[in-house]
Amino acid sequence: MDLRPGERLDDLGRTGLRIIQHPGRFPFAIDAVLLAHFATVRGRARVLDLGTGCGVIPLLLAARHRQVRVTGLEIQPETADMARRSVALNDLTDRIQIDCGDYRQVGKLYGYGAFDLVTMNPPYREPGRGVVSPEESRAVARHELNGSLTEAVEAMAAAVKFGGRVAVVFLAERLADLMTSLREQRLEPKRLRMVHPRAGRPANLLLLEAIKGGGPGLTTEPPLVVYEEGQRFTAEVQAIYNA
Amino acid sequence: MDLRPGERLDDLGRTGLRIIQHPGRFPFAIDAVLLAHFATVRGRARVLDLGTGCGVIPLLLAARHRQVRVTGLEIQPETADMARRSVALNDLTDRIQIDCGDYRQVGKLYGYGAFDLVTMNPPYREPGRGVVSPEESRAVARHELNGSLTEAVEAMAAAVKFGGRVAVVFLAERLADLMTSLREQRLEPKRLRMVHPRAGRPANLLLLEAIKGGGPGLTTEPPLVVYEEGQRFTAEVQAIYNA
Repeated sequence: MDLRPGERLDDLGRTGLRIIQHPGRFPFAIDAVLLAHFATVRGRARVLDLGTGCGVIPLLLAARHRQVRVTGLEIQPETADMARRSVALNDLTDRIQIDCGDYRQVGKLYGYGAFDLVTMNPPYREPGRGVVSPEESRAVARHELNGSLTEAVEAMAAAVKFGGRVAVVFLAERLADLMTSLREQRLEPKRLRMVHPRAGRPANLLLLEAIKGGGPGLTTEPPLVVYEEGQRFTAEVQAIYNA
Repeated sequence: MDLRPGERLDDLGRTGLRIIQHPGRFPFAIDAVLLAHFATVRGRARVLDLGTGCGVIPLLLAARHRQVRVTGLEIQPETADMARRSVALNDLTDRIQIDCGDYRQVGKLYGYGAFDLVTMNPPYREPGRGVVSPEESRAVARHELNGSLTEAVEAMAAAVKFGGRVAVVFLAERLADLMTSLREQRLEPKRLRMVHPRAGRPANLLLLEAIKGGGPGLTTEPPLVVYEEGQRFTAEVQAIYNA
């Protein structure tokens, strides 16, 4: 095994996948798992995952969809290297490519409109604003360090082809910001799913898919509830982890 | 009783209220009842209901909140007259005023920013687009006859004071249109509740409250499910009808 100091090896549910993580480099959280499951993935889609971190979204998409090719773009060299080693560990180097670079350069890196699907778990929160309550996912505490929401949406719009899809997981409280930014880039919101930590509680995350140049008309799917009593996942979230 | 040909007298749940309706003049539907319950109403609020129809929203708000004053604005003279007679029938003429007029003139009619809360059940659908499935509320089949969504939102923005609230019930599939229009008028979405006809089905309606000049940050409340098995209302919707 090819682990560096501080890294650990985790199983990805029952998928048979294994992933290298490091506590200091944004370990993947439930938001990434939900997004990989939510995104519409078709046939031989060319997929780009922006800000891929440890590579969890490319790994899940490539394992579940046997014909897709996924590129993961990550700005931190050490994290990109870690993701690359996870790809090799799972024998997915023929269909997953991990690049180190800035998503604000995505059009120049890959060409405009080069992808059928772009996924993103954008940086949360504006710089200087507080973190969310500890009960929400750790990932929710991320800050928009390397770019604003607007820049993230611009990057998705640059990378996706006309008629292609972008799929995002984001803070529920910023739904209006996200929709406004998407529409400014001709990314029309088409599918929305709110994620509630518990039944009867407000949503803390949202899953949204938009189509570049799509016509109006949004489907709000039934909400996804994460936890039952205590800290146990609901049956649906367990099934998503094990898909 | 002062009923005209074709009119009928209905009870409004267990409120003790009675309301005159006419099948040809948009009888109230569940969307109005949900909106009256959803809107945040405080103390001696001055409330305006745009496109009030048979006056169901003013009646419910005035009956439930003993200090508010509600103005209902309706463009069709016969419908406004019918609403006025319902107000008299319930002895609410001291706190409900029904005016006949075009909501596009609302700033001139009442002065800009004259209200603490503006409610609206805006005309649904763009002209020429199809109606929704018969399973959804009849009211969902309304068309935008007397104004577009943009004009409706402009009217709300003109009528509400800075820091005041607007509350809307609208088609779920047009959430992105609504949010975009609201923000263009500095109406910041603050509370959202999706209405699903049944658990496990997509939403068909949405309830949204925005604050004029409000800061960003949206709360998505737990979804509201309308029907259980068969055509029976869920306990929550029954409670809303009987509130």
